[in-house]
Order: sequence, then C-alpha cells, then structure tokens
Amino acid sequence: MAGGDELKLLGAFPSAYVTRVELALGFKGLSYEYVKEDLANKSELLLSSNPVHKKVPVLIHNGKPISESQVILEYIDEAFTGASLLTRDPYERAVARFWVAYIDDKLKVTIFWNGGVHYIMVPNDTRKDEGGEGGGVEADVRGGRALKDSSKGKPFFGGDTVGLVDITLGSLIAWMKATEVLTGAKIFDPAKTPLLAAWTERFAELDTTKKVLPDVAGYVEYVNKRRQTQAATAAVVASNS
Amino acid sequence: MAGGDELKLLGAFPSAYVTRVELALGFKGLSYEYVKEDLANKSELLLSSNPVHKKVPVLIHNGKPISESQVILEYIDEAFTGASLLTRDPYERAVARFWVAYIDDKLKVTIFWNGGVHYIMVPNDTRKDEGGEGGGVEADVRGGRALKDSSKGKPFFGGDTVGLVDITLGSLIAWMKATEVLTGAKIFDPAKTPLLAAWTERFAELDTTKKVLPDVAGYVEYVNKRRQTQAATAAVVASNS
Repeated sequence: MAGGDELKLLGAFPSAYVTRVELALGFKGLSYEYVKEDLANKSELLLSSNPVHKKVPVLIHNGKPISESQVILEYIDEAFTGASLLTRDPYERAVARFWVAYIDDKLKVTIFWNGGVHYIMVPNDTRKDEGGEGGGVEADVRGGRALKDSSKGKPFFGGDTVGLVDITLGSLIAWMKATEVLTGAKIFDPAKTPLLAAWTERFAELDTTKKVLPDVAGYVEYVNKRRQTQAATAAVVASNS
Repeated sequence: MAGGDELKLLGAFPSAYVTRVELALGFKGLSYEYVKEDLANKSELLLSSNPVHKKVPVLIHNGKPISESQVILEYIDEAFTGASLLTRDPYERAVARFWVAYIDDKLKVTIFWNGGVHYIMVPNDTRKDEGGEGGGVEADVRGGRALKDSSKGKPFFGGDTVGLVDITLGSLIAWMKATEVLTGAKIFDPAKTPLLAAWTERFAELDTTKKVLPDVAGYVEYVNKRRQTQAATAAVVASNS
C-alpha cells in the first residue's frame, strides 16, 4: 500500500460480512482504521457512504466508499499489491467466484431483529436446491468438487495460500461454531465431512484469522442476551394487555 | 478469440440470465454455438456441466464449463480480448459490480412453475430495502446516482461503450416490456424516469441487442400460453375431484 493511502472500515458486530472484509484486509497485509457503527443510530458517514443500502460493511479508500462485501473483496484484491486473493487464470477465477456465490446463496446466517432473535443456518436451502442432490454445502464443498477440484489437494481453496473462497467460507466459522453451541448440532463433524473439518482447523489457526475472527463465546452471549431482551419485552407486552 | 477456441452456450427460453450471456458474447464479438435445453428434460451435458445447480446458462469453453451468469460475464471479459466490459480502474469496476448486484437483487423477473404462472417484477423490494428511500431501481438508477455518477453523462453505464451494468439491466428489457403489455403498468415512463427511458431506447437500438434480445411478443405469448395450460390443468383437476 502506498504511504498516503487511507483505509477506513465501517463495521459492526456481529456481521459476518464485516468479518469477511477484515479477513481480506488482514491476508492482504493492509492496515486500516475500524470505525464501529451503532446500527440503531447510523452515522452520517455510513448514510452518506452507502446511501442505497445504508449497511455495513463499507470500505472507504482515500475518501471513496465501496459497499457490498464481495465487491469490496474484489476491490481489495485489484487495488492493492500483496498476496493475491484470486489467481490470474480466468477459469480458476470463475471457479472461485462460483463457489463464493454458492456459499453466499446457501450458507446463510441470518438474525431477525423483529419478533424474536434467531440464528438460522441454512446449509441446504431446499427452496433453491430443486433437483439438487441434497446435502447442500457439506456434500458439495466437502464432497470433493470444491476441495478436491478447486484446491487440487492443496491446503486452501486458494491453493497454497488463502483466497476468496477461504475468506468467504472462513468468515462464517465463528457463527457456525456458535450455532453448534446453541443448538447442539454438529456442523463440523470430522466423521462426516473430514476435509471440511480439517480445512476449518487449518484456516482457524492462521495468525490473521486468530486476530480477526470474533470470539465464539461472544456470539453465543450476544444471541442469549437478545433472547432475554425479547423475552422480557414479550413479558411486559403480555402483562400490559 | 484464438482460432481453436470452441464456445458452446447451454440456454433456454425465456431465461433473462441466458440473454445476459448472449449479450456479453455479442458485445465481445465472439461466435458460439447455442445449444437449446429442454428444462423439462435436461440433457446429460447440462447435468454434468453444472452438477450443483443444474441450471442454464452454462458456457462451455474448450470443454470447460462455467456456470452462474455473473461469473460467466466476468469470465468472458477476462478470458477474451476485444471490447472491455469492465474498465481497468479498480474503483470504477467496484462501482459497476455494485450496480450489477443491485439490479440482480432488486429487479427480479420470476416465473413460478407451480400453482400458476406469474410474471413478477420487483423494482422495489421492500423486504430488503429497509431504511431505503423507496422508489427502488427507478429512483436509484434513474435518480442520477448510477447514470450520472457511474456513466458521467456518457451514453452507457460502461461509458462510451456497453459494460457489465448495461448488459445486466439490458437483459431485462424484453421482460419489462412484456410486463408493460401484460399488466398495463408503465415501467419505462419518460416523464418519470427520462434518463432510464432514454438509455433503454439507446441500448435497444444497438445491432447486438437487436440480434440477441428476445421478441417482446414472444414473451407475452409464452406467459399467456402458460396461463392457459395452467387454467386447463386446473379445470381437469377440478372436474376430476
């Protein structure tokens, strides 16, 4: 990064999309200022930087705002030198973008702010999976197509180093682990999905990941607090009616 | 394109996503073989080329398949010389990708195959537009942000020539016009959205667009036929019960 570059990231807990951008900046070796947004009271800077969606993450590079996490990731890769998040080969780039879209489409971690707090994992979105083979991300990612074909036996989807697919999937690790704690479901089961489980451990152990990835306990606490608030509000509403 | 290159496009009427790829191939000056798929009886080639989604469009370049329309568009731009669909400047690329995602997210033309045929235009998806200013695509695209900021007074979103945003939005023109015919709604109202209406005419008049864009009457006929079939099926079911 040139000496005069200024990078500002507008973010908020617990957005995995923000985590994604932080991972990309970290693996790219870029330093930046993290500006924490209060989503209940959005800053003038956020509203003017992302007037269409008014959402985090927004990356501001020398005063110019970029929104939408995947757009930001490609921008980071194209605007700065350093480790490449996408290879040069057009076909390999297409394969990586395919899996990024797949993860974004199928692996959703959604929190509804109204009417209760839920953590929702949709590893196999059957609505959109008509005619699919079932098994969703696990079957597809683990089942050899992505890991074997796209990483060709190498440690990461990006090959020997972390790439766009690793970052996109990796940004969800803390949420998935929190979901395991909260539901008792086993998402990373080495018996069922050994390659994916091994990849997860490998990715989680990287220095950048350790610095960036939110604490699982923090997510769990966050969800439990939201539940209590909702329950308390519901009780007040009930006693008033 | 090098002499030995073989390009095959697996497509089907009436997919606007297929139209999108045809527009990109056309503006890039590439020749290709169009392989028409019967979606009720998908070919072995489609199933093996896109095993995850089993959907058109699939572009097969020298035997290698690429799926997902936006992934295909970026691939076409990166793998072949000729007119650029994205500029070199990383920031302008990010702005274009932002609007592509916006159009994909907000401007949906969906046909439900079960329980009746509908053509659904969601120019302002309020579900996802929380806190937005309303007015959706028209307000945003026409309202100066995209056309003025991103095309800077030039004839196309891509500048002097057609780019990714033009192709993505342009692939929907025939569906939008068919929707006008079928519903009586005025989507391209020069009084309300003069810039967008002017862009539509400009884009529709290009040689490539004329060759590629499906006939509006064909879409209308298609929807009406599906309605009749559904009505007939419903009548048979009713008379049998």
